Amino acid sequence: MTGLSDLPIRDDLRGRSPYGAPQLDVPVQLNTNENPYPPTPELVEDLAQAVRRAGAGLNRYPDRDAVELRKDLADYLGHGLTAENLWAANGSNEIIQQILQAFGGPGRSALGFEPSYSMHSIIAGSTSTRWIAAEREADFGLDPARAIAVIEAHEPDLVFLTSPNNPTGTALPLDVIAEVLAVAPGMVVVDEAYAEFARAGTASALSLLPGHDRLIVTRTMSKAFAMAGTRVGYLAAHPAVIDALLLVRLPYHLSALTQAAARVALAHRETLLGTVDALRAERDATVEWLRGRGLRVADSDANFVLFGEFGDRHDVWRRLLDRGVLIREVGPEGWLRVTIGTPEEMAAFRAALTEVIQ
Amino acid sequence: MTGLSDLPIRDDLRGRSPYGAPQLDVPVQLNTNENPYPPTPELVEDLAQAVRRAGAGLNRYPDRDAVELRKDLADYLGHGLTAENLWAANGSNEIIQQILQAFGGPGRSALGFEPSYSMHSIIAGSTSTRWIAAEREADFGLDPARAIAVIEAHEPDLVFLTSPNNPTGTALPLDVIAEVLAVAPGMVVVDEAYAEFARAGTASALSLLPGHDRLIVTRTMSKAFAMAGTRVGYLAAHPAVIDALLLVRLPYHLSALTQAAARVALAHRETLLGTVDALRAERDATVEWLRGRGLRVADSDANFVLFGEFGDRHDVWRRLLDRGVLIREVGPEGWLRVTIGTPEEMAAFRAALTEVIQ
Repeated sequence: MTGLSDLPIRDDLRGRSPYGAPQLDVPVQLNTNENPYPPTPELVEDLAQAVRRAGAGLNRYPDRDAVELRKDLADYLGHGLTAENLWAANGSNEIIQQILQAFGGPGRSALGFEPSYSMHSIIAGSTSTRWIAAEREADFGLDPARAIAVIEAHEPDLVFLTSPNNPTGTALPLDVIAEVLAVAPGMVVVDEAYAEFARAGTASALSLLPGHDRLIVTRTMSKAFAMAGTRVGYLAAHPAVIDALLLVRLPYHLSALTQAAARVALAHRETLLGTVDALRAERDATVEWLRGRGLRVADSDANFVLFGEFGDRHDVWRRLLDRGVLIREVGPEGWLRVTIGTPEEMAAFRAALTEVIQ
Repeated sequence: MTGLSDLPIRDDLRGRSPYGAPQLDVPVQLNTNENPYPPTPELVEDLAQAVRRAGAGLNRYPDRDAVELRKDLADYLGHGLTAENLWAANGSNEIIQQILQAFGGPGRSALGFEPSYSMHSIIAGSTSTRWIAAEREADFGLDPARAIAVIEAHEPDLVFLTSPNNPTGTALPLDVIAEVLAVAPGMVVVDEAYAEFARAGTASALSLLPGHDRLIVTRTMSKAFAMAGTRVGYLAAHPAVIDALLLVRLPYHLSALTQAAARVALAHRETLLGTVDALRAERDATVEWLRGRGLRVADSDANFVLFGEFGDRHDVWRRLLDRGVLIREVGPEGWLRVTIGTPEEMAAFRAALTEVIQ
């Protein structure tokens, strides 16, 4: 019987396990930072109509450059951006992969500050880019002087920043990003997957794009836009960066259905982003409640909260799951991450956690 | 003004141009091997209904392993295959990329017999897999003894075969594939993107899967299934191969909409594949007509025909385009490839070519 170990897979893949949170069928799913609010019936109806229109042409390849979608994304982001500054792919994972294929690869390196989104280092690995794991401060933020020192010491071809950071929820002040841009010898990627959830006063790295041609800001429609199922990630950067990505993108990578669905979601953005305020309030209440239980809680600008510290976090995770509440065992040892759900889901989480930590 | 050359892209990308046929808006598009028959209104309506059902859950990530789709694909392929033998991705390009990420990469090599589908060598490049270009015979087929010799000389980690081959239309006899399997030291990929168009009596490499654990057969829904716009490629292999691909696939790579659309298309397969007979007949008539004009024409088991030889093929291509007929300037010097369209489109092609070569 042939098994994986009998096949000639790449040596660096041997012994590895596939990435991914367990997809378990439990009542309260607070583990993958999804938006708990489903699309409205109006959006679903518009989507069905858009698919009906696109459907008649599905025998043809889609627009390889997704021009109309990129126009809509530029319009959404503002900051004077145009379609030439935008690029989209099947989730921000594919965006990250294309960036690493164009600017990383064998003999090159990428540096990130951990704990952070683990796909950065995983995709660095699958693109044969050497990963340099730098550390965050104890409060999960970055100290500019230490960040600069580690970049100057390693001279990475890419630096990955995250704001807000997953799994800690920590946003970066713009001046830290600017200081990194000033010393980084290569590309600087700011992953803003959770940007829409940031607290008031948190600026986006988009405002740094003018004058910074090696800055890439990545976003997703999976979180605030509640479109995880459609798999649309995107980025904003200097048009020359888009030209570079065109050299590595798979032709026709973005289906006609994906392009149509993303445009429908953008047309409904007021409704979709209307859920963000509710989730922010629920998040702030969750932080306060957890702190009220005597737990340590990281400040969060995202739609999730990292809390701890537990002597045996797996046991806590397991006992929550026993009570029908699935959260994520991720981040520094002893911490757990809970995605912000509906008020009902968060009530179930609080009730279950109260039982577990009693 | 920053240009692409000012950015720190990988050295091997410097000076390259993005891959892709021109997407021109002309009346008769016979350049990308699309199926000219659009989905039926019944299929489009079923698709809209499926999207309506999926739409209500689009805030959640899709099934990461696309299990239901893989069941349907196994059912379609037959040959005793199950979901465990199947894998799907965003077009066969992503399938090829995942295969090269798992089994190729730095320090490894892949060999193909050219002229062939150029994405094999391009994706080898973007995954840092060394590409070894072997040659086809003058009739665009493979001579088993010469194929074996070149494989034994280079010992590539992957061998890419194509049946039928793009851009020549040439199918491979099963015994040639079996002989390659017997000597290839690594994985053998048989790209069967055009399998459904093969003439009667052409066997699929699927029948070689039992007992050949290093064989991968790739397929697509872009051609016979007339679903180029939905971007669904897939493969059949030993379950251990699927385990290997799970190590490199981007999590949630296949959207809920793509999974739903592919399943709708599979449910309508009798209608969709009903176009294949018409296209086969049109192809055979096109081959005959071209030979009647004194042109050389490669035998074709696909939905396109390679013909020549022209002293200045670009001039012929350009003058056809002037007459509203877009074909593809691809393949060996002096040859051109025309996709088989509707009877009306092929009449336009014949009329235009008659004028051009007079």
